[in-house]
Parts: sequence; C-alpha cells; structure tokens
Amino acid sequence: MKSIKTFGELTKHLAETGMRKKVAVVWAADESTQHAVEQALADGFIEATFVGCAQEIQSQDFYKTHKEHITLVEATTPDEAATAAVALVREAQADVLMKGLINTDNLLHAVLNKQTGILPKGNILTHVTVADIPAYDKLLLFTDAAVIPYPTHEQRIKQVEYAVNVCHSMGVDCPRISLIHCSEKVNEKYFPFTVGYKEIAQMANEGKLGQCIVDGPLDVKTSCCAESMSTKGICSPIEGKADALIFPDIEAGNAFYKTITLFAGAQTAGLLQGTIAPVVVSSRSDSTQSKYNSLAVAAMIAPKA
Amino acid sequence: MKSIKTFGELTKHLAETGMRKKVAVVWAADESTQHAVEQALADGFIEATFVGCAQEIQSQDFYKTHKEHITLVEATTPDEAATAAVALVREAQADVLMKGLINTDNLLHAVLNKQTGILPKGNILTHVTVADIPAYDKLLLFTDAAVIPYPTHEQRIKQVEYAVNVCHSMGVDCPRISLIHCSEKVNEKYFPFTVGYKEIAQMANEGKLGQCIVDGPLDVKTSCCAESMSTKGICSPIEGKADALIFPDIEAGNAFYKTITLFAGAQTAGLLQGTIAPVVVSSRSDSTQSKYNSLAVAAMIAPKA
Repeated sequence: MKSIKTFGELTKHLAETGMRKKVAVVWAADESTQHAVEQALADGFIEATFVGCAQEIQSQDFYKTHKEHITLVEATTPDEAATAAVALVREAQADVLMKGLINTDNLLHAVLNKQTGILPKGNILTHVTVADIPAYDKLLLFTDAAVIPYPTHEQRIKQVEYAVNVCHSMGVDCPRISLIHCSEKVNEKYFPFTVGYKEIAQMANEGKLGQCIVDGPLDVKTSCCAESMSTKGICSPIEGKADALIFPDIEAGNAFYKTITLFAGAQTAGLLQGTIAPVVVSSRSDSTQSKYNSLAVAAMIAPKA
Repeated sequence: MKSIKTFGELTKHLAETGMRKKVAVVWAADESTQHAVEQALADGFIEATFVGCAQEIQSQDFYKTHKEHITLVEATTPDEAATAAVALVREAQADVLMKGLINTDNLLHAVLNKQTGILPKGNILTHVTVADIPAYDKLLLFTDAAVIPYPTHEQRIKQVEYAVNVCHSMGVDCPRISLIHCSEKVNEKYFPFTVGYKEIAQMANEGKLGQCIVDGPLDVKTSCCAESMSTKGICSPIEGKADALIFPDIEAGNAFYKTITLFAGAQTAGLLQGTIAPVVVSSRSDSTQSKYNSLAVAAMIAPKA
C-alpha cells in the first residue's frame, strides 16, 4: 500500500477499498456530528449506529437517503447512550466510537469503566492528532494535545507504540518518530525526561517498538525541516522528515495543535488511542470537517470487528 | 504614537525618528551577524561598536561606507569581547548588546556576573520573541521560548511586566496579555500554575502591572481568534485579540516559535529581557533577516543610554 499523504488521498483510498466500518455515535444531537456522519455515509466508508436521539435522526433528510446503513438504538440520556455505545464496541458490533453532544468526561467514564469499558489492562488512554499542513509534504501525526498532562516514561513508550501503529495503518511502513524538546541536547538536570528519550530511541533501534525510526530530543523545526537540521549541524535519522511528533507535555502538544490550525491552515483529525477501538472525541470548537477527517482516520485504522 | 503592526512598519518608524541607538556587538565573526548589522547601519537606526574581530570588520566593504557610525574595540577572545561589551552597556556607552559568534552560555556568563554584569538584582532573565505572522493582523509577542524552563509564579509576573513594557514601546498602549494553557479551566490538581494565572489577572485588574489587560488560562486559539472564543462560549477581555502570549513552559513556547516560523511563514525577532539593555541572542539557525528584526525591535525598545 502507498502511504497516504493528505486527507484527500485518505478519503479516495477509503472509497476505493469499498469497506464500511461500523461507527457507534453517542447522542448525536448536534449539527456538526450529524453532518460529519452524513458525509462519511455519503462517501460510503461507514455504517452508523446512532445511540440515543432516534427521533431527531429519523427526522433528518439524510436518514432516508442512507437508511440501509443506519441503525437506531434507543437511550434516554447521554450517559445511558455512552454505556450502550461502549457495549457495542466491547461486543465487536462497532469498530469505532464517536462522541456527539455529551461531555467528554462523561463519555470517558463509560470508556474507562473497569468492568464494562474498552481500555485493556496495561494500555494507556492518549490523544493522537493527524494533521494535514499545507506547508508540509505529508500527513504529520502528533501526541498528546488533549489527555495526558505530563507523560511518564512508560506512558511515552506507549505513545510511541500507538503512533507507530497509526502510521503503519496509514501506509507509512517505517515511520520517523521524533521525540520533541526545546533543544537537541539531553539535559538531566532541568529536563530529566530527555534521558528517557535516548532510552526510547535505543529501544526502537533494537526493534522493540516495531518497524520505525525514533530519535530525540529534537525540536519541531529540526524534526520537520532538513535544512534547519543541517544548519544546526545535527545528524539524525529523522532527516527533517518526521512522520510523528511525540510532545513532552500537553502544553506543547496543545500549543502546536492550536497554532497549526489557526495560523498554518492545517486540517486535523483527532482520536483517542489505547482503547480496543479508536474513539472520535472532537471538541465543540472543532469544525464539521475536522470531525469528518477524524471519522476517516478512525475508519482507516480501526481493525474490523 | 500609532501601534506598530508589522516589521515593515517598525523599520519605517525607526527611519522616520532618525534616532540611532548604540549597539555593542560581541565577536561578529559570522556573516549573518555582519549582514544584519550592515543592514541596520544602512537603514540608519544604529551605531555599531564591534568588540573583537577588528581586522575582520575593517576588511569588509560596509566598513568604509558606514565608518562614521562604527567604532572598533580590540579583544583577543570571544569571552574577553563579551566582558568588554557588557561593560559598555553597564557604563551607558551602549543601548543594546548583540551576540555574534560566541556560545550563548559564555555571553550569559558576562551578562549575569554579579559584580560586572547587567542584570539588576530582583530582575529575571527571560526571552521574548516578537512575531510577524501573515495570518495575524498585528505583531504577536510571546515568552519564553528559550531561557526559563518552568517559570515560577514570581518569574511569570516578571514575564508579564516585561511583555507589557515591550508592547508599550511598540505603541500598544493597553496590550492584551494572555496566559496560555491547554484549557480555559483552572485546574489546581494537575496544573497548579493555573491558580497563579487568576492571581496575575487580578493583579493586572488592580493596576499593579501597568496599563494592560491580562486574562487566562486561555489556549492559543481562543487567545488569537474571536470566533474560536465565541464558539467555545468563553467571555474574556482578551477578545481573541492578544498582543502577547505568556506560555506555561519552555516546551510550549519553543513549539510555538518553531511552528510559526516553519509552517506559518512568520518572521521573528528575539531578545533577552530583564537586563538593563535588550540583548540580541539569535541562534545559529536564525536567518540574517531574523537578526535584523531583532536589532530593529531592540533599537525601538531600548532606553537611550
């Protein structure tokens, strides 16, 4: 499979495969969730199970058009819908979970439930964004802009593993994963996690993290620009061509996310990883387009239940 | 004075005032420092004292052209040049200090010397960047991308004060200063500094930080985009029109800096603040243009010695 370099290529690829993934949508009372799901139905890469808001959905024009690919499940509250949708994923009746008009914390309550949830023991819940930045010549994945405040060394290893998996699913066979820091120097005193960076790079070298190249510490610019790397006299197997950036903390990840969307014209897709199926948890301020992109990435990377 | 909204307006304004600020340049053995100083001499807003590298400078074409505005001071090593240039600032014979081909740590050694340095007791050394981002309708100042890893509450108050001063010098009479966080919520458990944010906003309200508006926590997008702010249902006196962003840590500040220059076409100027005169400390990877911009901002904000 050729690597997918833009969201346009992604939806084209999904259309060509003709495979529909099953998406369980929790309480889709908001327009932007409905529109994103409608577009994905129209493009033919999902089947949707709306959990809750059945009457609302039945009254929409798109319901008639896509009836054969829509299932309606009753639920009286958003929380009840969350529990029911999570159960569908757990029972392998859905490949993707998607948040509608429900507080993220409430959705996560169902996702993380030790008995009935969908986060396997030993996994961590972390947020992955895939960005289509006009000034970069391929998709750029990064983590974590939304969930883990200050990842531990163990959490960071998992973040790398999940990033590698997503890249593989997107057709990048040997992704370059850059461990981000404000400098290229290991600094045990002020930035002890940079010592861990070297260990993670070593693990990758030993093949313990799958087919990938990992290096760091590197800053955003040296990670994504071969010229900056050579100006600084840095040699790194990332070669200024990173496929994924692992940010040291949520502040840096979030600043990156907000900056590329606001100032660099980037389109994004956001997902939770670590769960048995990808979870689309866009926020109120995300556009319909962003929710649609998230569905497309989720459909691409979700294992068929 | 009208507020200055682009680097183009800045150099135009400097040309109109006709005032030359005195810049002490430490060991200008590299081309990009020489070219930046040459351009600033040609544009008429500085006088340059080159400390060290006298023969090298005398052999350059621009030396003859701008001889009447150039002073040469002998020094045998970069470290000796640093000490001598810092002394010029201390003795009010220079308004701006500029780094040439010397390790930043070595320059800072001279700057921070308790007896002979130029950081007054009670001040902090912090890095301020001024950015001209094509997708933003005015200059955007931010701190700290380069010096303080994780600012304390006291350091952050100083950062706000310095940011306010720089904005005032650039003609922004009542700057909007946004305290950046990945969320708009105060979170004492995971992000204790957000509690401090509210205190700083309160101090600003009480007029303790000069003429300015301060609010936070806010993310980059809600700080700089009125539409994002209203979509999220947030009310803030920043109104999506921030003049300055105070980042929670160096990782976020640095990620922002590298991202706007790499992906958003931004031009930047970088300075150290807290010292009795602005210090231009561009890095190897900065362009001649960036060094020139830094000189222009330094010339604008430096008090005349």
